[in-house]
Amino acid sequence: MMLPSTLVVALLLGASPSLALWPQPRQITTGTTPLKLASGFSIKVTGIKNVPSDLTAAISRSKGQLTSDNLQPLVVDRGASSKGAVKSAKSLKSLSVSLLPTAGPVKSISEEAVLPFESRREGYTLVIPADGSDATLKANSTLGLLRGLTTFGQIWYQLDDSQFTLTAPFNVVDSPAYPYRGLMLDTARNFFPVSDIKRTLDAMSWVKINTFHWHVVDSQSFPLVVPGFTVLSEKAAYNAQSVYSPADVHDIVSYAAARGIDVIAEIDTPGHTSAISKAFPEHIACPEASPWAQFANEPPAGQLRVASAQTTKFTASLLTAAAGLFTSSYFGTGGDEINANCYAKDAPTQADLSAQGKTFEQALDTFTQATHTALKAVGKTPVVWEEMVLDHPVTLVNNNTLVLVWISQDNVAAVTAKGHRVIHASNDYFYLDCGGGGWVGQNVLGNSWCDPFKTWQKSYSFNPVANLTADQAKLILGGQHLLWTEQSSPSNLDSAVWPRAATSAEVFWSGPGGDVGKALPRLHDLSYRLVQRGIRAISLQPQWCALRPGACDLNA
Amino acid sequence: MMLPSTLVVALLLGASPSLALWPQPRQITTGTTPLKLASGFSIKVTGIKNVPSDLTAAISRSKGQLTSDNLQPLVVDRGASSKGAVKSAKSLKSLSVSLLPTAGPVKSISEEAVLPFESRREGYTLVIPADGSDATLKANSTLGLLRGLTTFGQIWYQLDDSQFTLTAPFNVVDSPAYPYRGLMLDTARNFFPVSDIKRTLDAMSWVKINTFHWHVVDSQSFPLVVPGFTVLSEKAAYNAQSVYSPADVHDIVSYAAARGIDVIAEIDTPGHTSAISKAFPEHIACPEASPWAQFANEPPAGQLRVASAQTTKFTASLLTAAAGLFTSSYFGTGGDEINANCYAKDAPTQADLSAQGKTFEQALDTFTQATHTALKAVGKTPVVWEEMVLDHPVTLVNNNTLVLVWISQDNVAAVTAKGHRVIHASNDYFYLDCGGGGWVGQNVLGNSWCDPFKTWQKSYSFNPVANLTADQAKLILGGQHLLWTEQSSPSNLDSAVWPRAATSAEVFWSGPGGDVGKALPRLHDLSYRLVQRGIRAISLQPQWCALRPGACDLNA
Repeated sequence: MMLPSTLVVALLLGASPSLALWPQPRQITTGTTPLKLASGFSIKVTGIKNVPSDLTAAISRSKGQLTSDNLQPLVVDRGASSKGAVKSAKSLKSLSVSLLPTAGPVKSISEEAVLPFESRREGYTLVIPADGSDATLKANSTLGLLRGLTTFGQIWYQLDDSQFTLTAPFNVVDSPAYPYRGLMLDTARNFFPVSDIKRTLDAMSWVKINTFHWHVVDSQSFPLVVPGFTVLSEKAAYNAQSVYSPADVHDIVSYAAARGIDVIAEIDTPGHTSAISKAFPEHIACPEASPWAQFANEPPAGQLRVASAQTTKFTASLLTAAAGLFTSSYFGTGGDEINANCYAKDAPTQADLSAQGKTFEQALDTFTQATHTALKAVGKTPVVWEEMVLDHPVTLVNNNTLVLVWISQDNVAAVTAKGHRVIHASNDYFYLDCGGGGWVGQNVLGNSWCDPFKTWQKSYSFNPVANLTADQAKLILGGQHLLWTEQSSPSNLDSAVWPRAATSAEVFWSGPGGDVGKALPRLHDLSYRLVQRGIRAISLQPQWCALRPGACDLNA
Repeated sequence: MMLPSTLVVALLLGASPSLALWPQPRQITTGTTPLKLASGFSIKVTGIKNVPSDLTAAISRSKGQLTSDNLQPLVVDRGASSKGAVKSAKSLKSLSVSLLPTAGPVKSISEEAVLPFESRREGYTLVIPADGSDATLKANSTLGLLRGLTTFGQIWYQLDDSQFTLTAPFNVVDSPAYPYRGLMLDTARNFFPVSDIKRTLDAMSWVKINTFHWHVVDSQSFPLVVPGFTVLSEKAAYNAQSVYSPADVHDIVSYAAARGIDVIAEIDTPGHTSAISKAFPEHIACPEASPWAQFANEPPAGQLRVASAQTTKFTASLLTAAAGLFTSSYFGTGGDEINANCYAKDAPTQADLSAQGKTFEQALDTFTQATHTALKAVGKTPVVWEEMVLDHPVTLVNNNTLVLVWISQDNVAAVTAKGHRVIHASNDYFYLDCGGGGWVGQNVLGNSWCDPFKTWQKSYSFNPVANLTADQAKLILGGQHLLWTEQSSPSNLDSAVWPRAATSAEVFWSGPGGDVGKALPRLHDLSYRLVQRGIRAISLQPQWCALRPGACDLNA
């Protein structure tokens, strides 16, 4: 029996505040029967010949977490009063994992994870009977099975040597509201070792985030080793150790894919490219020009000479070479914050424009068509920032181009009105770096440009289809949190990202409209579980409050 | 030759932006000669019979850091262009450490660290010749020698296998502007294991912070195991592991003292005591009363029954028993945020007041005199929050009582006008927890009550004697950053505290008036060194900026 999810979840939260699935499944019913995992509990794949190795590995990881999580229930007695119930509970001996008859040819998780968004299959059904008979997980894809395993892993709490739930049976029918649920990390302002990225990918997969938007290079540094362009990272990485070699990229991409995550890399163009001047000065206008504020939104200034045929060719080659490192169907070409003054003061650009009889906007159009055409030739769909649609209406040669709306969610209407597919990335809801004060030097009372700090409550309250027509709403692919790293480094990566990024993961998986009061106990639960798994998620409240759902509410 | 420090440092920052002592010594001259540490470099104590073991240990730690720091200079080439200069530099073979003839009987660092503030001796002189002849460190106390060793350890950068400086000779004559330079940590809203506290003590000592104000218990939990009152931690700690046993306290206190840090513990009274109701309900008014906002500034409500003779006696016994765990001459008795409604609605308190014919303020005065008299009897000077002077003018039986001013720095004038000694703790400059959004539940757009985030620039610009007369200024003992932990845990302890807490350390050691533009390169250097030493200090800027002092300034 499946009730509408909103009703069911509302009932459940009243009855069982410790039920802590995140993101909330779109349809779920639970009961009130205690159940524990048998000591020899197993997860068995049935009906699949040649089980993909990444599914086997995912099952092994999931099984390991069942005992390594050691998460006590977030209630005052941490579960002690359930001792009798757990002792006499039925034991679940096995979870049976299988593909549905409608699944078609078996693909690995890694293959499913990088399909175009419209083909991505992440749904699953999970049934856990209360009587100890086998639980079943079914899906149309190995990727869906991975999502179900993740849900299964959030059900169990620790008490003494048992992993238990008090709310069997479970009937879950789940699938995402939006196909794109992402997290962006900037690895150019400050560098992040591969281990930090992999730990972040782990945490992403635990909340069913399926896209790592990797803003890998920028004006400050160029850590990506691109075959044929290795001089870039040699001259413009912070140092020889602060680079991502092709082997590192392969490692990250495979690690992500095996966890159901598509890695969409971005080489921002034509702005945010000062670093390229260290290796190819001929292609960059206004490199490190001073005062920087006249030439760029932040130091150092420098933009690709879009009016130059040589620079256009160079950029197209660089993008295709970089895109070749990734298995994704998508590749980010940027397009934000183009500074007009930089080009106005650049003699070669002015000479090129004059010789070609073009305006800057016409040159930018030619440049963008060239780079996007080159990407199309290697099977990649571009991802651009909103300025490429709203401020510089270039010709987007690929109808499927994804547009990141970051300046304001109010701009989504205009982008979708033009028929473009949108990824929500509004700074006002999703920028993880806001609110830490200004980072520019010699600025005593400087604020962060995007003050205030974006709380988890703010992003959780986001409505992806606000002010959109039904047709416009269909163009929303999803959204993401973003971490620009002017003031972040490995020291505060986890604490800046977690658990806040989980709130967009739920908005775009479960759909909007969640209540922050009801979400908080589950978000506590997720945060404590993340900490148990080695992620430095911050505390949202004193532990006294975490153990007493509702007791620290505004009017409690 | 000793020039006035401001002039000298200004010259130095122009000539040598990589000179990165923090806090800035009060008098320093440097040169332009490269110097490196000899491979067999040693630190020798001379002229002290029976060298205290904590001095020997401090020397050993300092010596270890010289090679383990591995900190490259924060310049674009990370020191590579200095290779020739370093190769041909003279080698420093030894640092000779000794007490001055005026030192008096030799005490250990640990003994010196807990003397009353007016007797604390932290000054030192450090001379490092440019010609390779022995460096000398002299002081009137082992505590001063520790401070000098800390300075010595910040001088050296790594290049290949050498530790070098480009700015020998060094002549440093240093001593603190203010005797109290602290950091407060709240271990009651969320618990912090001993290892987190010890790591924090390490970092504190590296910036010459000399006081750990340990706000150890509060309404949410009571993790301190107090002899004779162990039922408190048994019933009101978050769990049996989240406690500080007497052995843990001894460990923390000795660890701190050996690093020149006095541990001033606080048991906040009579407010912020809800946790006590778990073990001694008879002593607490309005325990966990609802709605909490009518009974306390945050949940859970609960205050000691100040009008009860039994509660007064209980409190005095508890405070003296707790104070007995610590070697400090000081002990915090709190006194902030007393809620009048809690007592107004508490029948036993009203009955007591009526029976005694006292007003609440008179009862509070009696209560406070009793607890402070009890502490005086065991040799402890109380530390109170400003309300005990300004809102509830109780009789302070100890003339040396320290008063923490937290509500506004504007209140310092009123507190000092009454002749009290002040510790600056203004939330508007020094609260490390502000700006992360509201933590109270069911509150979508809630702000942090002390918004915005307190930037390092803000605290660095603090003037301890603003609007004070010369006589009032003499009553300023120093100041501190503070971390209340509603939204902090071990996950973000380091990133919340460092490097921001270093800015008050410099204001109160070097004196106010520092320029944020000139401080930034040194603060970068400190932050990078902290990271090298295992502290998760956050990045203040993109590394591109850190390597180019001034290039990311507002008008650069």
